Amino acid sequence: MRAVIMHAPGDVRVEEREDPRIIDPTDAIIRLTATCICGSDLWPYRGADQPDHQHMGHEYVGVVDEVGSAVETLEVGDFVVGSFVISCGTCEICRAGHQSRCVNAVFVDGAIGTQAERARIPFADGTLVATPGQPDAALIPSLLAASDVLGTGWFAADAAQAGPGRIVAVVGDGAVGLMGVLAAQQMGAERIIVVSRHADRQALAREYGATDIIEERGDEGVARLKELTDGLGAHSTIEAVGSQESMMQAIRSTRPGGSVGFVGVSHDVQIPGDELFFSAVHLHGGPAPVRRYLPELIQLIWDRVIDPGKVFDLILPLADAAEGYRAMDERRATKVLLTL
Amino acid sequence: MRAVIMHAPGDVRVEEREDPRIIDPTDAIIRLTATCICGSDLWPYRGADQPDHQHMGHEYVGVVDEVGSAVETLEVGDFVVGSFVISCGTCEICRAGHQSRCVNAVFVDGAIGTQAERARIPFADGTLVATPGQPDAALIPSLLAASDVLGTGWFAADAAQAGPGRIVAVVGDGAVGLMGVLAAQQMGAERIIVVSRHADRQALAREYGATDIIEERGDEGVARLKELTDGLGAHSTIEAVGSQESMMQAIRSTRPGGSVGFVGVSHDVQIPGDELFFSAVHLHGGPAPVRRYLPELIQLIWDRVIDPGKVFDLILPLADAAEGYRAMDERRATKVLLTL
Repeated sequence: MRAVIMHAPGDVRVEEREDPRIIDPTDAIIRLTATCICGSDLWPYRGADQPDHQHMGHEYVGVVDEVGSAVETLEVGDFVVGSFVISCGTCEICRAGHQSRCVNAVFVDGAIGTQAERARIPFADGTLVATPGQPDAALIPSLLAASDVLGTGWFAADAAQAGPGRIVAVVGDGAVGLMGVLAAQQMGAERIIVVSRHADRQALAREYGATDIIEERGDEGVARLKELTDGLGAHSTIEAVGSQESMMQAIRSTRPGGSVGFVGVSHDVQIPGDELFFSAVHLHGGPAPVRRYLPELIQLIWDRVIDPGKVFDLILPLADAAEGYRAMDERRATKVLLTL
Repeated sequence: MRAVIMHAPGDVRVEEREDPRIIDPTDAIIRLTATCICGSDLWPYRGADQPDHQHMGHEYVGVVDEVGSAVETLEVGDFVVGSFVISCGTCEICRAGHQSRCVNAVFVDGAIGTQAERARIPFADGTLVATPGQPDAALIPSLLAASDVLGTGWFAADAAQAGPGRIVAVVGDGAVGLMGVLAAQQMGAERIIVVSRHADRQALAREYGATDIIEERGDEGVARLKELTDGLGAHSTIEAVGSQESMMQAIRSTRPGGSVGFVGVSHDVQIPGDELFFSAVHLHGGPAPVRRYLPELIQLIWDRVIDPGKVFDLILPLADAAEGYRAMDERRATKVLLTL
């Protein structure tokens, strides 16, 4: 099969690899229908991590091709959406809804790699969710979004306790931020204020439910947000950038007793304890437990209630993965879908 | 009147000061019945802050002596318990229950000082709560505890989401930690594991509901706690020390999706963003909104359901305040009550 391999930072190639096969009885083999490039794939691409012939990709939809003898909820031919973290579904942490920190968790990235024609998915029952039937082609981008970027934005909004009567701030207008806007609107937020400097992303944010745009960053952005909120700040803030500046902007933009949800963070971020203390916010984040939300998200997509697939603004065949990475690295694309 | 003044680190004196008087129509003047010395009073005492003839004290119970013309809920002669933060009770933040971050908040410490015979309490309606009647002398220590140390421990347990079915860890066996144990038990925690090395505090912790004691600190303490919790960690962790080590012990002791409540932090604590991210815990803290809990806590004390006053292990007259500070500084006392 063909798979996307990152030989070194900036060096992405599509190469032949052996087809995966069932190893454990809880495995499934899937044929990928679509996959995509994540903002986090740019970290090794730009050299922040050191990739060494790494098998890339962790977002995926596809068709079940083979199941191990212990798989109970899936059949060959099912169309499935999976989470970017393998989860057993049976441990106490999974059952509490924190599947991304399952005691048997495996990050798909590197260990498996779904920028490929096929993939072996361990703990298939705990990781994959079948759609109600075979989806129309038009639904594929949205279902693919559910496997990470939508699930992550949804978790961020949930962690920030977005809901009726709440003013939600979204720091960051990348794909995750935009999905956070969509999620906050679905959750019934009263007002959604997005920090964005890009006209095209502002437009999509407004389409997804943003009511206000702030162009200023850092403490100027905080001051602008306070002006818009009677000096109090947001009830719920989604941190969707992951830098020191954006994390502090998120905390400072939130009123006492409010909540900050964060879904990615660079290695060097340090949160000053005393500032967090006096902010009196709730802070919750982590790798999104996408599996918790998949049944609900799939249904919303299936029923055409939400259309997260619009976040993909460049579609390429898998063979052109290298161009996809370049386009995202150079900010010519927000998010790239790879077809198979 | 007499008042406790800290001239400089280690130099505490009881001196004559002018009686306070009504300034704003929302003020009340109270005659103190009892006050106490807080663990946080040791920060300036030990030179971590630089006191300069500071009027000390922020925990208090007493009798209303005079009210301003706009005070509605209190009458002269009422016995009252107050929070260590003055709160207006009417702003949006107060109404949401985060009175310690009221937009009109004033910290009693320094600005007012309740280690004194009398005190002026601004925003009396928003800050003070009257007891159902004149309390027996035996209830005074517990009512006094409600004004800070109990309210703070209660908030820590609430922020950590202690409750039925939850394993609660308490990092720290000082007065706040012990009150956190009491609170967790009242909230119905299934199991309460306390980090403590002092036999007398362990005994009181067990009396308040502790089920297990861990003597190890730092990462050894984390390992011991994991052994006791099937390798998963606590659902709810109360951080009641405020150091870098204790904060990290608290975060690392908590299972993914669990909650850490913290109620004090020294200036140099830094929380690594990536570790917090992968911990996937909820983190919430701040100056405790004691006022939110006062009506409930007063009733529990009034009904003899809880006896937080046991946390005071040394009782001295106000005139001997300097000895009280020494006893706490030298760890001869956990918490000192000053009588008037």
